[in-house]
Amino acid sequence: MTRTITHTPDPKLDLVLERVVDVPPKLVWAAWTRPEYVKKWFTPAPWQTVDCEIDLRPGGIFRTVMRSPEGQEFPNSGCILEAIENEKLVWTAALGPGYRPQNVSADVPLFTAVILLEPRGAGTKYTALVIHGNEDAAKKHAVMGFHDGWGKALDQLVALAKTM
Amino acid sequence: MTRTITHTPDPKLDLVLERVVDVPPKLVWAAWTRPEYVKKWFTPAPWQTVDCEIDLRPGGIFRTVMRSPEGQEFPNSGCILEAIENEKLVWTAALGPGYRPQNVSADVPLFTAVILLEPRGAGTKYTALVIHGNEDAAKKHAVMGFHDGWGKALDQLVALAKTM
Repeated sequence: MTRTITHTPDPKLDLVLERVVDVPPKLVWAAWTRPEYVKKWFTPAPWQTVDCEIDLRPGGIFRTVMRSPEGQEFPNSGCILEAIENEKLVWTAALGPGYRPQNVSADVPLFTAVILLEPRGAGTKYTALVIHGNEDAAKKHAVMGFHDGWGKALDQLVALAKTM
Repeated sequence: MTRTITHTPDPKLDLVLERVVDVPPKLVWAAWTRPEYVKKWFTPAPWQTVDCEIDLRPGGIFRTVMRSPEGQEFPNSGCILEAIENEKLVWTAALGPGYRPQNVSADVPLFTAVILLEPRGAGTKYTALVIHGNEDAAKKHAVMGFHDGWGKALDQLVALAKTM
C-alpha cells in the first residue's frame, strides 16, 4: 500500500495551484489534516468553515460545512483516498465515507483533490491538483474562482501555520 | 497507509455475497489481481471478459471489457482504491484511473466493490461487498442478477484456482 501513482495533470480537465511557501511540510500537513486547523483556513474569508471531521485513512470521512457570508451552509462529505504523512493527501467528493458513490445530481461538478508537499529549504513546494470528470466541470470550477479561492485559502493556511 | 477501515454493509444500499470456498486466499487473490486470470472467470458464461488491465496500487486502473453472447462489448475503466495482498481488494467504478471522477450519465448505477479474504482452514471465507449510492442503484443491480451473476463468477474463480 505504500506505492503511490504519479499524477500527470490534463490541462483540459484539471486545475493546478502550485506555490512555494515558507512553512515546512509538517505544518502544512497538520493544517490540512486536523479539523481544528482546517476550520481556520479552508474557506477564504468572509466565508467560514464551521465544522470539519477527518478520519485520516483510506476510506475515512473528509467532511466540511462551509458557511456563506449570508449564513447559508454547504455540507460536503467526501472520502480520504491516500494519506502519506507530510507528503501526499488525496480526497474525493465523488465518494462518501467508506467509498460509497455519491448520490448527487449530474450537474454538481465532483472532483478529486491531490495535495502534494515537497521540502524546499525550510519551506514547502505546495501543489494542489484538482481532477474533474469532464471539461464542463473543470470550466465551472475555474469560473467559480478556483485559483483566487484556493490561493487565498493557502494564504490563510500559511498565516495559521506560522502561529503553530 | 496500512490502517484500513471496517465496512458495515447497509442492507438498503449494499449487496453482499459471502461464501466459504475450498481454495486458499493467495489463489483467490491471484485470480482477482492478475489480468490473465480475471479474463477466465470474471463474467458468467456465455458472457466473456475479453480484455483486462490492472495496475495494482491505489489510483491504478482496473479495466475490463465484457462481451455479451451476441458480441456486444462493454468496456469499464475503474480505479483501484486498496490492495492488501491476500486480504482486501477495493476498486470503484465511480472513479477512473488516477482517481478521476467518472463522466457518466446519472442513470448508470455506479458501485464500489470490496473483496475480503480470510483464511478458513485450507480455504477462504470470501466476502464481496458491493456499495451503491442510493436504493435505486442497489435495486437495479439486484434485479440485473447480482447474486446469481457474482455467485456463478465465483464458481468459475474457484474452478480456475484449482488448476493453478
